[in-house]
Amino acid sequence: MNLSTPTDYAEEIISGNRAALSRAITFAESKKPEHQEFAQKLIHDLLPHTGKSKRIAITGVPGAGKSTFIEAFGLFLIHNSYKVAVLAVDPSSKISRGSILGDKTRMEELSKEELAFIRPSATGGSLGGITARTFEALLLCEAAGFDVILVETVGVGQSETLVKDITDFFLYLQVAGTGDDLQGIKRGIMEMADLIFLNKVDLFDAQMIQDSKMDLHRALQFLPKTDSGWKRKILKGSGYSNLGIDEVWQEITNYFELIENNGFLSELRQKQKLSRINDYLEEMLLQKIRTSISIQEERLKWEKQLHNNEITPYELAEKMLEKYFHST
Amino acid sequence: MNLSTPTDYAEEIISGNRAALSRAITFAESKKPEHQEFAQKLIHDLLPHTGKSKRIAITGVPGAGKSTFIEAFGLFLIHNSYKVAVLAVDPSSKISRGSILGDKTRMEELSKEELAFIRPSATGGSLGGITARTFEALLLCEAAGFDVILVETVGVGQSETLVKDITDFFLYLQVAGTGDDLQGIKRGIMEMADLIFLNKVDLFDAQMIQDSKMDLHRALQFLPKTDSGWKRKILKGSGYSNLGIDEVWQEITNYFELIENNGFLSELRQKQKLSRINDYLEEMLLQKIRTSISIQEERLKWEKQLHNNEITPYELAEKMLEKYFHST
Repeated sequence: MNLSTPTDYAEEIISGNRAALSRAITFAESKKPEHQEFAQKLIHDLLPHTGKSKRIAITGVPGAGKSTFIEAFGLFLIHNSYKVAVLAVDPSSKISRGSILGDKTRMEELSKEELAFIRPSATGGSLGGITARTFEALLLCEAAGFDVILVETVGVGQSETLVKDITDFFLYLQVAGTGDDLQGIKRGIMEMADLIFLNKVDLFDAQMIQDSKMDLHRALQFLPKTDSGWKRKILKGSGYSNLGIDEVWQEITNYFELIENNGFLSELRQKQKLSRINDYLEEMLLQKIRTSISIQEERLKWEKQLHNNEITPYELAEKMLEKYFHST
Repeated sequence: MNLSTPTDYAEEIISGNRAALSRAITFAESKKPEHQEFAQKLIHDLLPHTGKSKRIAITGVPGAGKSTFIEAFGLFLIHNSYKVAVLAVDPSSKISRGSILGDKTRMEELSKEELAFIRPSATGGSLGGITARTFEALLLCEAAGFDVILVETVGVGQSETLVKDITDFFLYLQVAGTGDDLQGIKRGIMEMADLIFLNKVDLFDAQMIQDSKMDLHRALQFLPKTDSGWKRKILKGSGYSNLGIDEVWQEITNYFELIENNGFLSELRQKQKLSRINDYLEEMLLQKIRTSISIQEERLKWEKQLHNNEITPYELAEKMLEKYFHST
């Protein structure tokens, strides 16, 4: 493969070249300015080919069975002739880089399929940066013709908000009987969820599952309506035993039918793009400040003042902005 | 209370006026520019009175018993004549605002104590914003003379990274027997932790606790050394039954002795301030862009191009920066 321009890459990606897609995502994730520039030109060229996939967030606490579910769900989709990309987002690995995603045995069957593409998303840097990078990977996968893009979050907490921001549908995996332990995070997550899948039903007795499902139904009643007009659903099944997977897809299909018809999808996609602007602004600003000679000249003096409690971090930020930027 | 200037507030806060402290934190959390300006002036005035507390992060998954532990630990400190402030951070409540912190029964005993001050931290806005706001609340509490500031995270995930950024000591609460379920997040958290407290030992049998402790010890061996030169510790006990609380304080005291002597504390405090600068830069930049007339004039045109897939979010961000800012 001897590709030298963004246009070359664009053609290869559209024609389904996986190696070109992989390398393009690597460029988008790179911190080198020349890679970034290349990736951004490429994404620009590919824009007309984006927007056609279903973008689905899949989350759940560790132990909810995400990998197994995604493997089963991905295989189901592939057997129905859909092309599936899986992007895994792990903001917590900022410190212990790649500890989770290094696990090569995850989704073993799915990763062998020709119609599947599995890619951990780069971490590092700011949170906005993670979302922006995942969004770029998502656009590249769309241009490559994937019909369904599953964005998996690893861990719980802030990462849900991040993927919620760039996806159309939010699927939350829950396990029966863990409701009590998770009371702290349940409400926030449930508000984001379009579908809650009670996973691992084969491991619990029927009564416990029924109880959990009723608890969830009760909890749903107290939530505000979704912006999309969709009524949140609860399904049960098992990724491991392949139970209920088809129903999940049926609901997702129903959801997209609804939001395509009521105009919400178009609105949402524009919102997804708009929210990325702030991510980029932040990155660009920090980059400009790092490379500004006049700021770097003053920096040591300012940092000393900061150390001596003569100025606050807020005041230092103000000085930097004043020094560097002039409004028009 | 009739306080009109930042200087008035500063005096009241230093003299221990709780109402003034509360209101100052509210100003710092406010999105109104005039409140922000007031708060920043106040913080500037108070700077010489900051830096003297022990800043302690307390985290753990929901169900680990954080509230009960903090109540017990806070009361222990107060009985030893320390003044204790508790700041609770909950980034996930961006959507369901205050659902968790609205729970008034939390830390009931502690909240009655004269030497204690309990305050949920405002959410809303960017993640950087949350950290900046919590840091400001922390500085204000320090100026008010609190000896120990406990920064509690609600939920798990990204919030740990946030509080790690503004605290000196990281205490992680773990419950015996949940190790397996939490494998996904354990390593990242354990790397951040200075002390792991195996909580709720009164609920489990001795063997299970021993097993959990050994698992933790084994896991610790594989972690890189801490930057502070501190050796990570594991303790066990119970917030509910007041077991092991004094040992936690003993280890914290040992830790601070170490980092005061080896210079790490001074280094760390400067780092805490430096990392806030980016938070403020981001906020200020977004604020400037929102209020830039020339940008707002072009904005609709740009958003249409974005919608029509003619430009990428990255390119739009570039246009905004070019329009508004001129490097010097």
